[in-house]
Amino acid sequence: MMTGAEYEASLGKLNLVVYMFGKRVADVGDDPIIKPSRKAVAATYDLAHDPEFESLATARSHLTGKKINRFCHIHQSMDDLIQKSKMGRVLGARTGCCFQRCVGMDALNALSIVTYNIDASYETQYRARFLKYLAYVQENDLTCDGAMTDPKGDRGYPPHQQSDPDMFLHVIEENEAGIVVRGAKAHQTGAVNSHEIIVMPTMAMREADKDYAISFALPSDTAGIIYIIGRQSSETRKLEEGTIDRGNQLFGGHEALVVFDDVFVPWERVFMYKEYEFAGQLVEKFASYHRQSYACKVGVGDVLIGAAQTIAEYNGTAKASHIKDKITEMNHLNETLYCGCLACASEGHREPCGTYCVDTLLANVHKQNVTRFPYEISRLAQDIAGGLMVTLPSEADFRSPEVGAWLEKYLQASPHVPAENRLRILRLIENLTLGPGAVGYLTESMHGAGSPQAQKIMISRQVDMHQKQQSAKRLCGIKEDESS
Amino acid sequence: MMTGAEYEASLGKLNLVVYMFGKRVADVGDDPIIKPSRKAVAATYDLAHDPEFESLATARSHLTGKKINRFCHIHQSMDDLIQKSKMGRVLGARTGCCFQRCVGMDALNALSIVTYNIDASYETQYRARFLKYLAYVQENDLTCDGAMTDPKGDRGYPPHQQSDPDMFLHVIEENEAGIVVRGAKAHQTGAVNSHEIIVMPTMAMREADKDYAISFALPSDTAGIIYIIGRQSSETRKLEEGTIDRGNQLFGGHEALVVFDDVFVPWERVFMYKEYEFAGQLVEKFASYHRQSYACKVGVGDVLIGAAQTIAEYNGTAKASHIKDKITEMNHLNETLYCGCLACASEGHREPCGTYCVDTLLANVHKQNVTRFPYEISRLAQDIAGGLMVTLPSEADFRSPEVGAWLEKYLQASPHVPAENRLRILRLIENLTLGPGAVGYLTESMHGAGSPQAQKIMISRQVDMHQKQQSAKRLCGIKEDESS
Amino acid sequence: MMTGAEYEASLGKLNLVVYMFGKRVADVGDDPIIKPSRKAVAATYDLAHDPEFESLATARSHLTGKKINRFCHIHQSMDDLIQKSKMGRVLGARTGCCFQRCVGMDALNALSIVTYNIDASYETQYRARFLKYLAYVQENDLTCDGAMTDPKGDRGYPPHQQSDPDMFLHVIEENEAGIVVRGAKAHQTGAVNSHEIIVMPTMAMREADKDYAISFALPSDTAGIIYIIGRQSSETRKLEEGTIDRGNQLFGGHEALVVFDDVFVPWERVFMYKEYEFAGQLVEKFASYHRQSYACKVGVGDVLIGAAQTIAEYNGTAKASHIKDKITEMNHLNETLYCGCLACASEGHREPCGTYCVDTLLANVHKQNVTRFPYEISRLAQDIAGGLMVTLPSEADFRSPEVGAWLEKYLQASPHVPAENRLRILRLIENLTLGPGAVGYLTESMHGAGSPQAQKIMISRQVDMHQKQQSAKRLCGIKEDESS
Amino acid sequence: MMTGAEYEASLGKLNLVVYMFGKRVADVGDDPIIKPSRKAVAATYDLAHDPEFESLATARSHLTGKKINRFCHIHQSMDDLIQKSKMGRVLGARTGCCFQRCVGMDALNALSIVTYNIDASYETQYRARFLKYLAYVQENDLTCDGAMTDPKGDRGYPPHQQSDPDMFLHVIEENEAGIVVRGAKAHQTGAVNSHEIIVMPTMAMREADKDYAISFALPSDTAGIIYIIGRQSSETRKLEEGTIDRGNQLFGGHEALVVFDDVFVPWERVFMYKEYEFAGQLVEKFASYHRQSYACKVGVGDVLIGAAQTIAEYNGTAKASHIKDKITEMNHLNETLYCGCLACASEGHREPCGTYCVDTLLANVHKQNVTRFPYEISRLAQDIAGGLMVTLPSEADFRSPEVGAWLEKYLQASPHVPAENRLRILRLIENLTLGPGAVGYLTESMHGAGSPQAQKIMISRQVDMHQKQQSAKRLCGIKEDESS
Repeated sequence: MMTGAEYEASLGKLNLVVYMFGKRVADVGDDPIIKPSRKAVAATYDLAHDPEFESLATARSHLTGKKINRFCHIHQSMDDLIQKSKMGRVLGARTGCCFQRCVGMDALNALSIVTYNIDASYETQYRARFLKYLAYVQENDLTCDGAMTDPKGDRGYPPHQQSDPDMFLHVIEENEAGIVVRGAKAHQTGAVNSHEIIVMPTMAMREADKDYAISFALPSDTAGIIYIIGRQSSETRKLEEGTIDRGNQLFGGHEALVVFDDVFVPWERVFMYKEYEFAGQLVEKFASYHRQSYACKVGVGDVLIGAAQTIAEYNGTAKASHIKDKITEMNHLNETLYCGCLACASEGHREPCGTYCVDTLLANVHKQNVTRFPYEISRLAQDIAGGLMVTLPSEADFRSPEVGAWLEKYLQASPHVPAENRLRILRLIENLTLGPGAVGYLTESMHGAGSPQAQKIMISRQVDMHQKQQSAKRLCGIKEDESS
Repeated sequence: MMTGAEYEASLGKLNLVVYMFGKRVADVGDDPIIKPSRKAVAATYDLAHDPEFESLATARSHLTGKKINRFCHIHQSMDDLIQKSKMGRVLGARTGCCFQRCVGMDALNALSIVTYNIDASYETQYRARFLKYLAYVQENDLTCDGAMTDPKGDRGYPPHQQSDPDMFLHVIEENEAGIVVRGAKAHQTGAVNSHEIIVMPTMAMREADKDYAISFALPSDTAGIIYIIGRQSSETRKLEEGTIDRGNQLFGGHEALVVFDDVFVPWERVFMYKEYEFAGQLVEKFASYHRQSYACKVGVGDVLIGAAQTIAEYNGTAKASHIKDKITEMNHLNETLYCGCLACASEGHREPCGTYCVDTLLANVHKQNVTRFPYEISRLAQDIAGGLMVTLPSEADFRSPEVGAWLEKYLQASPHVPAENRLRILRLIENLTLGPGAVGYLTESMHGAGSPQAQKIMISRQVDMHQKQQSAKRLCGIKEDESS
Repeated sequence: MMTGAEYEASLGKLNLVVYMFGKRVADVGDDPIIKPSRKAVAATYDLAHDPEFESLATARSHLTGKKINRFCHIHQSMDDLIQKSKMGRVLGARTGCCFQRCVGMDALNALSIVTYNIDASYETQYRARFLKYLAYVQENDLTCDGAMTDPKGDRGYPPHQQSDPDMFLHVIEENEAGIVVRGAKAHQTGAVNSHEIIVMPTMAMREADKDYAISFALPSDTAGIIYIIGRQSSETRKLEEGTIDRGNQLFGGHEALVVFDDVFVPWERVFMYKEYEFAGQLVEKFASYHRQSYACKVGVGDVLIGAAQTIAEYNGTAKASHIKDKITEMNHLNETLYCGCLACASEGHREPCGTYCVDTLLANVHKQNVTRFPYEISRLAQDIAGGLMVTLPSEADFRSPEVGAWLEKYLQASPHVPAENRLRILRLIENLTLGPGAVGYLTESMHGAGSPQAQKIMISRQVDMHQKQQSAKRLCGIKEDESS
Repeated sequence: MMTGAEYEASLGKLNLVVYMFGKRVADVGDDPIIKPSRKAVAATYDLAHDPEFESLATARSHLTGKKINRFCHIHQSMDDLIQKSKMGRVLGARTGCCFQRCVGMDALNALSIVTYNIDASYETQYRARFLKYLAYVQENDLTCDGAMTDPKGDRGYPPHQQSDPDMFLHVIEENEAGIVVRGAKAHQTGAVNSHEIIVMPTMAMREADKDYAISFALPSDTAGIIYIIGRQSSETRKLEEGTIDRGNQLFGGHEALVVFDDVFVPWERVFMYKEYEFAGQLVEKFASYHRQSYACKVGVGDVLIGAAQTIAEYNGTAKASHIKDKITEMNHLNETLYCGCLACASEGHREPCGTYCVDTLLANVHKQNVTRFPYEISRLAQDIAGGLMVTLPSEADFRSPEVGAWLEKYLQASPHVPAENRLRILRLIENLTLGPGAVGYLTESMHGAGSPQAQKIMISRQVDMHQKQQSAKRLCGIKEDESS
């Protein structure tokens, strides 16, 4: 297993093509905007070396029996699923942001199930290919990006009817050595921090779309892959001299559009090829695992609650009953989210291939709450923080010989707390509710692993309405259709 | 293990002193208002004989190794805790009401922990006494009432300072054979359907209140115990000729005030006697178990959701997008509750005595949600039901030769559904949202196992705010008090 | 203007055909279930004689200049609209229930607009007929029922395609003297307390449904009109000996299905006859007025808030910060409702005929909130009340020589408050949240004047989305379609 | 009345001492971060010249009878109060941000009442002074900052007990010509866009704090006044070359800490001087007016709703039922806010001095909703927008010859909408929910004109609980304390 430092060094060897602000990023690992996001992934490596978290952050490979980082592990038990949820919370609290590595873990687990299932229907060898690839990932402790969301073009049409056929990633050529693909994947969290990129179809597909029903993995610096970094609120504060105004001094995230400009994939890295009837299953398995992964937001919630409590203490309001009640409400909502990611794990089941998978219904219920509660927790944090959070002058003003003293004087609340501490904690709350942290804590909570309506559709499909109706009819004495 | 019928017969042998509507109830088992509540308890016996639910509704006694009804079982594993939550949901869905028996199970489990802990501090023999009692309960498959809530009098004063010393149940005499107690227990759900009544103190106590720090068990028909049945909304419909207007044709609940008019308790039935410093622990353990028990409301929610879907179909509105969305929301809220009662079980732990106990924080989080979501589910059910639910004439009108035909004609919606079916399902929704069912599904969800504020206090105590604050401070670079 | 007593006497002269519990009600005015609802209407008469409320409860007739009861008035100014909202709140607080008379006022005002508009399109004389009728109503200070909601049958089909043509009320015969109508109107609040019944179509109609596009008024005891009373939760407590368990000692409501069994209507009482294109307008005007009328629920909310504060004081919890916060939240929600019914009035406008009408958008916004907030206010009231509300024995138990003393003893909280007072206020909260009062405060708030989705549709139609989009596009610099 | 351009020119003559990012701002009017906020104030001048809005944006001075900008007007009628609410909405929709000028209007109106009331108690001449000042403001069409919030230091102590006496602004010297003050005012929205600054005390005060009970007005560039600009999320995008990423191309806001470094105030500009018992009244009047002023957020809500509808159309999802429902919900919440600011105006009353004032209770209810609904509207906007809002590359990437074409290709949804339009509208939603617009739309909605708890306290004080309790007691027959 690599340490965080070894991980960062390993990425340095990659030749990634990354654009930001209209220009190619010369040294990706050293870029001040990308670096904090890389540090967040590094935290997933360091955790595995922390004795306190060994059972949480590591596992025994079912392939080799070796101790591996849990992010490379295929879940072998209900307990593995529960440990995954707990690891997410711990890392969320450690980084205060998205640590990006869960998407690869979820893609690997989904593929472990679906490659097996395709082989069971066809005379294919996807499972063997996949396990070889998995062994490579585990052996080298790699970070994988899981790439699912296509640009989709006009939402009214399926892939093959789009006016531009590239709006969904598809195969454009096939030969003995492999295939050539074209398209793009949007919203790729942490893409340029990954050694590998695992591509999956974006939705269930029909036969006419079979050229789009493909899954494969490639090194992230394969020729033809281009990364274009998305903006985040206030991200340029990372370019400023001082560091306080960043809020989160240590970690961050990034998102990218990943373009596949006629990229070659060797057959040994192809895990689904035109078996369109399995596209939906791969999406559903990945989505279920990934909706569980929003356990991390409980950890980010811990940070925000801790920050709210701290500013309340600094402001001298921590003992007001309405403040205590709001803190309790924040905790209540946050722990309700924790219940969701634990319950979908504890209700997990064994798939035919041996992999354990979370309960689909409860994973969707969990994620649906994630699209709601962080917004309310965030609103309460802003309530507790006070208006100063958005009227606070810059760190440069604090450091200024001309006005710094005014700020020291007038922004002090408790005589025991330096104004700078107030500044720091308020900038953290700003980061999490309006800044780059809010991209992860709020908007990503809304849309990551599928937008709210996607979960609602799954919830409505997964509940057993017939049984509920039978219970009701029996109790009120409706007879006619009890056998229906 | 008894069947439901055997259970009902066994109760028939008791000589209970029960009052209702100002008069002594002559034949408790045959009273039309009490009977449906007794049937609901009987369902807990029948479930244990249903092969489909064997693993859910039965367990192996850790005392005897015999198969017993789970309601008499002391939890021996995390899985036992999870099965308990699931059993609650199943029975809630089967009965559409409170089946009353969980309170005794929770009292037994709490005592199994606390008697052990008292013995560990004092030279007492509570544990041995308790296990003997437990063996008796298991052997005879008894239903126990768990009686905790005292009338409390003036909330501003502790027990020993009340102007009337009986506002909390207390010992008034002690002799070689046992003790004599006086007081009352309020809100006793299912009291007159129990073979035994297990009394516990209502809150943490100090030395001055040690006469109030007592716990014991007695046969429910012990001399001096008087039951006064509480009214429920629309309960007298159970006295009417027709049965449709009851809504729930099969089951119901009841509540009682239980007066202890100088009742003798033999020493072998006393499980805590003036060890006041353990009163709070017993309350907290019982409360944690009992907050988990609100798993049952998920099952009642299943019934209400099933009823809402059914009336939507009968009304011809089931395919309207806003109806589907509301049904999904009801399911989402209901499954969020399910997550809570599963998570507090799956995070359960082993107590020193060997008993498994749920996670206190998550059990409180679960119950807090139970004080909220059933109200919203109920509101949505009323939305879907339509106004007819509260303007519907009586069953007698439907049966009337003079106006029955008008109702048949004008209350028919779909040509394929008899007006009577609409009547039946609407009466069930009325039962659950305004009638006796609402007592259980709404008000009991609010106050049972402790009112909302009780859970908020526990949540605020159980979360680790220090750790959250350290996470926040580390991320924003506040140094000074990292070691604090 | 009649007094309440004169009103009750005047109703005594009617020969109404009323059924309840499958039997014809012999003396409607004396029936213990109907009487409290009649008293609630009487309160609207008494208020007009109360000097404190003269400007609120009376107005000058624009026909005669005489002082009339506001319930018979056609709004002549914005101030009239505002007074109407305020009168609703006052009467809601006075009666704690639905006082039933607003529906006739709303029907009269809607007809005053639409009869004018029909005449403006056709050579009809509806306006003159209507004004003559209005003068009669004002002169005799009559209570009118406004009857709109048809049974509707299969929601998938318009009136003329129903398998049973009577599922919407329609004309079946026409002659020189008048017309004969057949059908029914459901959910008629206070129907048997009205002198007159004003029938309106239930929705917008097309030409094929013109036989259903009719409006007229009749004396409530016209031959062929049959009333079948709907059940309400716990309504039979009004038949019991004691009165405490009723909760509301003074007032109540009722609902009825009204059957028109081939009823003759003279031409002078017909206000719309097959002008189908005006059916929608009449519905919309009536609905807007009637959605404003849910001002009354603010008054009922006042009662429930007052009751919650009182039980908190009796319980000794009124000073707990969480209780104070809940009371404040109840008030906040209730006053937010008040804002809605005031705003739609203050934004009212003059129709071509001179009648003032509320703002349609805001009236719908108001009613939409009424479908939500009373449920939350009710939930909070149950929270504050405590579990005793649903475990309280009957008044007969309190009066019982055998157990009454136990109840006096154990249900006393504060030494300064008799247990009976606690009993009384808890029964009032039960009445309003689970009993007959909940029918009015909750379910009627949900469905009266149109179910929530009806308001949502109106809101989506009434907002000017184009303007909002232009504002947004201008600010972000989207040019291409600014002229669109 | 000045035009917007004249206003900007007039400000150019001021010699303001402004700091930002640690440096003095050389040319305030030309600073790219401040300029958009100045443009927003300019919009209040231009509106008064727009014939369409003449009655909204102008009024007749009660001093001179001349037509003046409504922002300089003292409300003379209920209609004036209503027009104020409407003007706020229009300007909010026009600017999509805080236009800053209402605070001065509210301060002037509050002072018009309180100066009169002080004179009525003491032999003071504040009213005459104030009216002279008012005439000057009206004549010159000035923008006034209203400065109330002190830094407050340790919340546990009143002003005179603070360890640093300057934590509340106070008088430190008095002479024949006037007084000298020291202290600071925090959260001053639009401070550097004002000609005048009107200072008021921050809370009710007792005699010991009389040195802090002062109110006065000064030109904004008076010697000793220093402005330190606060940071806003993503504000430095205004310094970038392209303009799209700003979201709002035209307008913005700013906040400042205003330091009073021993500033001289001539007596003619002093409106309260140590009459401590009127400090609370001034705060309450100002707060009530200013809570009404949050009418503007309805207009900003219009922009966000328009933007959400637009991105839904661009995404091709506008007809999905869940999207339509969310848009309707956004409108419903927004119009509920509108009801609040209208109702507190329509329930306004005439103060003894002749000034009309809003209803305090309803103004607080309105503002309390403003602390809630914009957050939910914002959450729904992010839901509708989709994840692209936070993964969108920069405008520079769109313009880049190397990757611009990829973005054009892959970020196009509907073939009829250029990708740039999608970019623009998403950046506007980002601005309003995570960027500088969110400072105004969310956090300022939370804390401006008082934090939520301040409104809750006022609501609990303003409601007539006694009357509500009497209504409840009468209905359930509690007699004993009816006269209490």
